[in-house]
Amino acid sequence: MIDADLIISGGTVLTMDAKGTRIEGGAIAVKGRDILETGKRSEIEKKYTGQLIEAGNSIVMPGLVNGHTHAAMTCFRGIADDLPLEEWLNNYIFPAEAKNVNEELVFWGTLLACAEMIKSGTTTFCDMYICEDEAAKAAAQAGIRCLLGEVLFDFPSPNFQTPEEGLLYTRRFIEKWDGHPLIRTFVEPHALYTCSQQLLRSAKELADEYCVMYGTHFLETRFERDSLTEQFGGMRPTDNLRDLNYLGERFLAFHCVWMDEKDIRLFADSGSKIVHNPESNMKLGSGIALVPEMLDAGIMVGLGTDGCASNNNLDMFQEMDVAAKVHKALRLDPTVMDAPTVVRMATAGGAAALGMGNITGSLEAGKRADIIIIPLDKPHLTPMYHEYSHIVYAANAADVDTVIVDGKVLMRGRKLTTIDEHAVMERVREISQRIRKSLDMK
Amino acid sequence: MIDADLIISGGTVLTMDAKGTRIEGGAIAVKGRDILETGKRSEIEKKYTGQLIEAGNSIVMPGLVNGHTHAAMTCFRGIADDLPLEEWLNNYIFPAEAKNVNEELVFWGTLLACAEMIKSGTTTFCDMYICEDEAAKAAAQAGIRCLLGEVLFDFPSPNFQTPEEGLLYTRRFIEKWDGHPLIRTFVEPHALYTCSQQLLRSAKELADEYCVMYGTHFLETRFERDSLTEQFGGMRPTDNLRDLNYLGERFLAFHCVWMDEKDIRLFADSGSKIVHNPESNMKLGSGIALVPEMLDAGIMVGLGTDGCASNNNLDMFQEMDVAAKVHKALRLDPTVMDAPTVVRMATAGGAAALGMGNITGSLEAGKRADIIIIPLDKPHLTPMYHEYSHIVYAANAADVDTVIVDGKVLMRGRKLTTIDEHAVMERVREISQRIRKSLDMK
Repeated sequence: MIDADLIISGGTVLTMDAKGTRIEGGAIAVKGRDILETGKRSEIEKKYTGQLIEAGNSIVMPGLVNGHTHAAMTCFRGIADDLPLEEWLNNYIFPAEAKNVNEELVFWGTLLACAEMIKSGTTTFCDMYICEDEAAKAAAQAGIRCLLGEVLFDFPSPNFQTPEEGLLYTRRFIEKWDGHPLIRTFVEPHALYTCSQQLLRSAKELADEYCVMYGTHFLETRFERDSLTEQFGGMRPTDNLRDLNYLGERFLAFHCVWMDEKDIRLFADSGSKIVHNPESNMKLGSGIALVPEMLDAGIMVGLGTDGCASNNNLDMFQEMDVAAKVHKALRLDPTVMDAPTVVRMATAGGAAALGMGNITGSLEAGKRADIIIIPLDKPHLTPMYHEYSHIVYAANAADVDTVIVDGKVLMRGRKLTTIDEHAVMERVREISQRIRKSLDMK
Repeated sequence: MIDADLIISGGTVLTMDAKGTRIEGGAIAVKGRDILETGKRSEIEKKYTGQLIEAGNSIVMPGLVNGHTHAAMTCFRGIADDLPLEEWLNNYIFPAEAKNVNEELVFWGTLLACAEMIKSGTTTFCDMYICEDEAAKAAAQAGIRCLLGEVLFDFPSPNFQTPEEGLLYTRRFIEKWDGHPLIRTFVEPHALYTCSQQLLRSAKELADEYCVMYGTHFLETRFERDSLTEQFGGMRPTDNLRDLNYLGERFLAFHCVWMDEKDIRLFADSGSKIVHNPESNMKLGSGIALVPEMLDAGIMVGLGTDGCASNNNLDMFQEMDVAAKVHKALRLDPTVMDAPTVVRMATAGGAAALGMGNITGSLEAGKRADIIIIPLDKPHLTPMYHEYSHIVYAANAADVDTVIVDGKVLMRGRKLTTIDEHAVMERVREISQRIRKSLDMK
């Protein structure tokens, strides 16, 4: 018998490996941070000893990968909705951020986000926000895997006065967390319309120096596409990315709602990655990206919730459901974005988009043990014909019972092990009272 | 002090009355089946005695109204997805139904649906299916409010050989349940493309004879609209409804995806009602109805999940979220379908669409006590700025803690009081094994 730390046993294991291997009566042996082996229960239990986590009548699958969010914006969840974009930004989000964002807000807001993400089956998230070192501390405390970047733009942020200071903060941030088992860092200029060409070039140079990923919001709205095209004298914004030497395998673009077939070709040919955020794009009236075409072109496309001011939760189950349905509706074609495709975007595909496909996103020997368990003994999950279908079309966030990240159990029986969620909620409620006052809300 | 049976006290009460009254620190006194009074906690507790249901730090609101479903199709949940419509219907749904639907399937499938609906905050549903007397028995046992109709069409169903038999079944069904406190019945010809003009006329006469509602699927797909228009020699299908004397205040049309502005005017002028099923319409690639225009025209529009073969759950929270977002995305306008509008569609508006606006859908004295409680002490519902926003954009089905229908507590602390959910799931699993075999599924 081989010593393991955990043996997750029973249920149907969806490995999300390249072949889509599905194991009925499956089991996973975990040692330290890693998966030792995934196989039939009968074989794994004969071969390994360790603490048993019983997962009978459950789906066992990789934890979900939230490819784009602004975690600390949980503090602004639902502060303003259903407004014209300019009014929403200029009268609510920007002033609320300018008056309230500081290290305390980012730490507690991110920790609340981690609690919500773990409770909804997310084991890896990709974040862009301010004072991101605090987000890293919160994620490290929560024990969740992440890819974090400080948002960079030309104007002052609550964390820096000049772009140079932002770049220096990013450099120190990258160096500080280098080698951490959970925290990865990258470089995140906000967008082409908020960053000078010089800032964009410097950001790319920094990313190259440390060989880390770099990402930016891109073509989220039609207005953005049109105004950038005008600014560039008729050149398509994707060509500007090419001129800036952005297109490539370490480049991650968020939204990409207004990319056309030619943009898609440029992304595909260069190995650039995309994160699709359908709920946010719908709620803000931005539109719907050509995701089936992106996938057909071979682009690695992940799925993200965006921040809580524009969604308003971090629920990847809802995101999967909407991602599967909205493209069918637009094309009047029920065959696009089938359930296995969407589950892949939220797991192995999303991990690959974040440049983390070698360590997470599937349940295979040698990868980190990032695993969730979804018991099926519930009315809305009965009966069971197809697991992928249930995950995308029937399950909700609260169906996740157990979450393991990096071999550590972060939730069991829906109880968090690393976060005192009531204390965190209390702190965020206090912060929200200050936010209310700062905006003269009742 | 006045004797009450229940006093639901604390939290913010969203009454959904015509003025949209919202009561912080509210309370509701219930006697028998009825709401005696809704008001401030301090006043209600002084005036009434009764069993206290504490609802501090919660949203207290009317139970949700699922305006269109085929409840027993829980048995076929996820049996086939992501297929072309014809293949899905002809190779899966129709054969599965023809080979398996009987009274047993309908009873247990509907009882499972009732468990799922209660657990997701639905207190009233509108159903169209086969052997609907069994659905009525299940709903009566569950204690949930409903509007039920036997589906009528020209070809034989598992419950009748001829349309005449279907009409006779419906007549007996209406008479049998007349006067039941929870069960209402109506007449439901399936669609213009599956019912002869004679059957449609006879169905309307039957509805008139008993002065009950009548409803039908209408313009769900572009193919339906085009083929009906051709069949009617170029006349619009809505004009055929007018010629059949269908348009009017007791008429309820499901889907209406392909109605245009002229159809909307005919519906609005006649007081005809509509139920919008966005998730089903999206999943089947049918399209998106012009719901903002319908509401602007003054049509009463409810919200429904459709059946579990095409959604695949009965979750009205997801339905609200998608209904709020998808119309924004199509119009590139974040201001349409705001959260209060969508909550109204799922409560008072939906009740009015079903002809039940006088008894349910809002928390007002004299109406039946159909109430749900949503505690807010959860990460994804923290912090709280606006209740409507949280209901539509942040909450999920599992956030409902307590459900009261007709003054009776059907769920408390997420424990059902009228349904043994594990026994029901076991029966439906057995039925699903037979369904699998009948379709030669592994």
